[in-house]
Amino acid sequence: MAVYTEVSDDDLIEFVAGYDIGEALSCKGIAEGVENSNFLLTTSEGPFILTLYEKRVNPNDLPFFIGFMDHLATKGVPCPLPIRASDGNALGELSGRPAAIISFLPGLWPRRPQPEHCAEVGRGLAEFHIAGDDFKLGRANNLAIANWRPLLEQSIDRADEVMDGFGDMVSHELDDLENNWPDNLPSGVIHADLFPDNMFFRNGQLSGIIDFYFACTDAYAYDIAICMNAWCFEPDHSFNITKARRLLGNYKRVRDLSTEEMNALPILARGSAMRFLLTRLYDWLNTPVGALVTPKDPMEYWRKLNFHKSVRGTQEYGLDV
Amino acid sequence: MAVYTEVSDDDLIEFVAGYDIGEALSCKGIAEGVENSNFLLTTSEGPFILTLYEKRVNPNDLPFFIGFMDHLATKGVPCPLPIRASDGNALGELSGRPAAIISFLPGLWPRRPQPEHCAEVGRGLAEFHIAGDDFKLGRANNLAIANWRPLLEQSIDRADEVMDGFGDMVSHELDDLENNWPDNLPSGVIHADLFPDNMFFRNGQLSGIIDFYFACTDAYAYDIAICMNAWCFEPDHSFNITKARRLLGNYKRVRDLSTEEMNALPILARGSAMRFLLTRLYDWLNTPVGALVTPKDPMEYWRKLNFHKSVRGTQEYGLDV
Repeated sequence: MAVYTEVSDDDLIEFVAGYDIGEALSCKGIAEGVENSNFLLTTSEGPFILTLYEKRVNPNDLPFFIGFMDHLATKGVPCPLPIRASDGNALGELSGRPAAIISFLPGLWPRRPQPEHCAEVGRGLAEFHIAGDDFKLGRANNLAIANWRPLLEQSIDRADEVMDGFGDMVSHELDDLENNWPDNLPSGVIHADLFPDNMFFRNGQLSGIIDFYFACTDAYAYDIAICMNAWCFEPDHSFNITKARRLLGNYKRVRDLSTEEMNALPILARGSAMRFLLTRLYDWLNTPVGALVTPKDPMEYWRKLNFHKSVRGTQEYGLDV
Repeated sequence: MAVYTEVSDDDLIEFVAGYDIGEALSCKGIAEGVENSNFLLTTSEGPFILTLYEKRVNPNDLPFFIGFMDHLATKGVPCPLPIRASDGNALGELSGRPAAIISFLPGLWPRRPQPEHCAEVGRGLAEFHIAGDDFKLGRANNLAIANWRPLLEQSIDRADEVMDGFGDMVSHELDDLENNWPDNLPSGVIHADLFPDNMFFRNGQLSGIIDFYFACTDAYAYDIAICMNAWCFEPDHSFNITKARRLLGNYKRVRDLSTEEMNALPILARGSAMRFLLTRLYDWLNTPVGALVTPKDPMEYWRKLNFHKSVRGTQEYGLDV
């Protein structure tokens, strides 16, 4: 839950007047998102989302994020369209922060994802990858495997606060990932954070993909692996093969997966689990008392990682090879 | 910033289906309000506010709050209209909480109130009092003067953490208020919490009065005193007589004030300052570390209280007697 910057009514009215979107009627901080301040802005023309980019976002990345959303929305992907101000810029400044107004997407995110949702995730993700294929800009993944060791080192002295011996276990696992990580898989711009709260549905159909602020250039199959971890485990931590079959099967129907990509899924899924484990571990150990955001449990991803270590082939993900 | 209860998409869709307001398209937690969970609900018919009543609200009071909003909105006061479900009830249950859908009011609340806003507050408050005059229900003010001593006793052992000798000073001041508190002033339902974030404006005109969850039966002039404290002080804690003159003058134009009411304003304003001082003091000393809501400084209201002690007559509020 997060609104880090307060916007005065006078500043807002002046900012909105720079756009051709009518008069600002209402602006309410949204209790979602942890990186930026988001507001539901209602104008005489309807609802919009106003985002103020906070310090964790590198301002140099903003043209990539805005440009990528614009590229995808123009191609028909159900993602927010950045609104251009009258001066042609989709990126402005409000209350001392870089700020953008993007279109409002209808839909609710699924609190209890079902196999039907996973099918839509697979289809939507593949269409997302194809639509982004000819996007001209790139952005390095600053949470890629090369960044995991330095991230672990920031936590390792205190990692055993989570579980006895945890630091060593994670470090050994990371050795193995580093020694066996696949390269040369088909790559392009991936979402890299496609959790249920970033996908909206309406009448069972995917209606929106939001929150592009981890998007970066990396292997498409790694994005699939992130989604498997985010969508295919049950609250009791068990893996739901039906959900994975629907997700992967529908993905493949839109964008075919090579044998190399399929065979890489178990290690990519372990790697994706490592990536979320490490940022959660860092946040768990470093979130100041009294912070607005409650840190998430890193152990959830340790369990997921270990599931993928036990996988002997993609048939355990519901794929017929 | 507050959303205490999460609402699942399935539960929401079912709840909204009980109303004649179209299909639920979106529901976003609002990072405002400290007592209840509020959501901006967008349906195919437009925006609404969904409120889930949390534990600090007594469920027995809900028919009063809902009925009062309904009464005022029907009389043309710009306040939310509770929407009735198809079964005729404006109060339902969602995610295990009492819940209501109310109409959405356009407007922005003023971060830096100007004298023109104060003029609208005066007019709007007087119209509010007149419109509520024939409302049949009542609700005791559970933050009235009789409640202040017990409230202070919950904080007095640690009051000196705020300032050396603070507990004694507040206690002596409370003695004086108790000995001189006026009774028999004209009474009815008052808002009791009409701070700037509870009043929306559009093009300089009052467009909305919200948050009725402190409304209760008490002296109308006490409601005016609350507004003077909430609207007529500058960020440097100085009293702005121009703002008070506009507020009181515009109030009187709509609902006349008796000599008794005017003469009572200084002590009512001291009492109003005491009421907010005491709840802030309690929250200041008792808010758990890590809470979602940052407690407000009780000293602000001690300064206001002392200003009103120095007042020798209503001409210092800009009133010509």
